Amino acid sequence: MSFTSSRRDILSESVLRTVTFAIDHFQVSPGQGVDLSLIDANDTPFWDPTDKAGAKKHVASLAKELQQQQAMLWAQGKHKVLLVLQAMDAGGKDGTIGKVLKGMNPSGVRVESFKKPTNNELAHDYLWRVHQKTPGAGELTVFNRSHYEDVLVVRVMDLVEPRVWQKRYDHIKAFEQLLSDEGTTVIKIYLHISKDEQRNRLQSRLDEPTKNWKFDVGDLEHRTKWDQYQEAFQDALNKTSTADCPWYVVPANRKWYRNIVVSEILNQTLTGLKLSYPKAPDIANIVIDS
Amino acid sequence: MSFTSSRRDILSESVLRTVTFAIDHFQVSPGQGVDLSLIDANDTPFWDPTDKAGAKKHVASLAKELQQQQAMLWAQGKHKVLLVLQAMDAGGKDGTIGKVLKGMNPSGVRVESFKKPTNNELAHDYLWRVHQKTPGAGELTVFNRSHYEDVLVVRVMDLVEPRVWQKRYDHIKAFEQLLSDEGTTVIKIYLHISKDEQRNRLQSRLDEPTKNWKFDVGDLEHRTKWDQYQEAFQDALNKTSTADCPWYVVPANRKWYRNIVVSEILNQTLTGLKLSYPKAPDIANIVIDS
Repeated sequence: MSFTSSRRDILSESVLRTVTFAIDHFQVSPGQGVDLSLIDANDTPFWDPTDKAGAKKHVASLAKELQQQQAMLWAQGKHKVLLVLQAMDAGGKDGTIGKVLKGMNPSGVRVESFKKPTNNELAHDYLWRVHQKTPGAGELTVFNRSHYEDVLVVRVMDLVEPRVWQKRYDHIKAFEQLLSDEGTTVIKIYLHISKDEQRNRLQSRLDEPTKNWKFDVGDLEHRTKWDQYQEAFQDALNKTSTADCPWYVVPANRKWYRNIVVSEILNQTLTGLKLSYPKAPDIANIVIDS
Repeated sequence: MSFTSSRRDILSESVLRTVTFAIDHFQVSPGQGVDLSLIDANDTPFWDPTDKAGAKKHVASLAKELQQQQAMLWAQGKHKVLLVLQAMDAGGKDGTIGKVLKGMNPSGVRVESFKKPTNNELAHDYLWRVHQKTPGAGELTVFNRSHYEDVLVVRVMDLVEPRVWQKRYDHIKAFEQLLSDEGTTVIKIYLHISKDEQRNRLQSRLDEPTKNWKFDVGDLEHRTKWDQYQEAFQDALNKTSTADCPWYVVPANRKWYRNIVVSEILNQTLTGLKLSYPKAPDIANIVIDS
C-alpha cells in the first residue's frame, strides 16, 4: 500500500471542509502488493482513534453527499458502479452495507448476496451467475461476497483442484477489465479484521438474542483454517488489484472507523466520475395542457 | 372504501403513542368497490392538513419502526413481503420509494421497476417476468409499476384486444392468491393524484434542471387519455382487491401526507406479522477457540 499525504477539498453543503482521507493509502498497488500480516486491523489512519463521536458525525455527513452522488448517478443513467465486499466471516460486510449505504434511494441501489451456488449455477462456469448481477446504467450494485469466493473458500476447502483455481485469477482480471472497459467503475474492498476480533464477534452472536440468527456453526470450521484463508485473501488481492479495478484493504476491527473509510472510498470514487443531472435538450417550447 | 374510527396502540421507543391511522379506511373493499372520481386527492384523513411539520416528524419516527421491522423480517427469513406501487405518470412512485423506504437495510429491500417489456419478455405471458422478481423469504420487494400495466397502459393504448386484457383480472387474482397462499404478504397501493397536480409536476420537470431527466414527452400523450386511465385504474382496483391482497387508494397530491399513509400501511402490515428475531436452538454449549 502506498501512503499519500495529499489533501483534497470538497465543497459540501456550502461548507468547505478539508478531507484528509487519501484513499489510495488503502489501495493495493498492482506492482507492489500487500502483506496482510503487516496491516494492523485496529489501525485508524487519518483519524484520531479516540474520536468515535466525530467519526459518526463524519459518516453521517458523507452519507448525505453519497445520497446526492447516487441521485445524480441514477438520473444520468450513464455510469455503472460495482462495489465488491469481501471479508472473513463476521468481518462486517452486512454491517457496512447497513451503515454506509442506507439512506440511498433503493431504486438505484441493489445488493446481491452470493451464497453457496445452486446446482444450476454449478452447472455453469463460476462467473456465469455473477455476470448476470452486474449493474446496469445508473445503478450502484454491491456484491456481498462475489466471484472471489471461487479463489477463497473454494481453494481453502479444496472444492476444486489447485490447477483449476490457479487459473481463475486471470479469468477474474479479464472479466473485471471487460466490465471496466464497458463503463463500469469497479471498487473492491477487503474488510480486514483480526482473529481475536472474529472471536469477539462470533461470541456476541451467541450471547445477543438479536444476533443468534447470524450464528452459523460452519463458521467455526472456517475459523480453524484462519491462516490458509489469510493466505488465499492475500493472493487474491495481490493477483487481481489493477489500476482500473483496484482492491482496498480497510482496517475493520473498529466498525465506526471502517464505516468512514468505506464511505470515503465510495464518495471520492463517485466524485471522480463528475456526475451531473442530464439536461433534456428539446423541452424549451413544451406546453402542458390543463 | 370503508371508514373505521378504531384506534390502535403501538409501543415504540418506550413511548406509548396512539395511532389514529386506520389503514382500512384507504382499502378498497372487495365487495363494495371504489369510485375514484369521488376521492379528493387533496384530502388528508386522520391528519390536520396544516400540520406538515408534524407529518415529517411522524414519518421519520415511522421510518425507525420500519427499520426495526425490516431487520426482523430479514433475520427471521420466513415471511415475504411484496409492495406494488401504481400511479399515473408523476404520481409519486419514485418519490415514495425514496422517502418511505430509505433508511432500510438495502440487503433485504429490493426495488424492481417494470419498464416497457423487451422482446424476450413479450415472447412470454405477461406474468412471466413479474413472477421472477417476486420476493424470497425475508425480503421486502417493491414493484415500481407491475403486471397491472398489462390492464392499464396496455388497455388504454390498445396494445392488445379487449378480449385479451379482459381475461387478465382473473389471472392476476389467481397469481396473487398463489403468492399469498405460499407465504407472501401482498400490499398494493394506488397513489391518487388529480389532473391539475399532474400538470404541476410535469411542469416542474421542465422548470427544474435537476428534474429535467424525468421528463418524457410520451407522458403528454398519456395525459390526453386521463379519463380512460382513471377508468382503467378503477376497474383494476375494483376487480382485483381481495381480502388477502388488498388495494389501498392513497390521496397523494400532498407528498408529505402520502408518505405518512404509505408508511402507516407498511408499518401496520408488518406489525401484523408479529415478526421476531429467531433463536438458534443448539448454541448453548458452543465455545469459540482463540
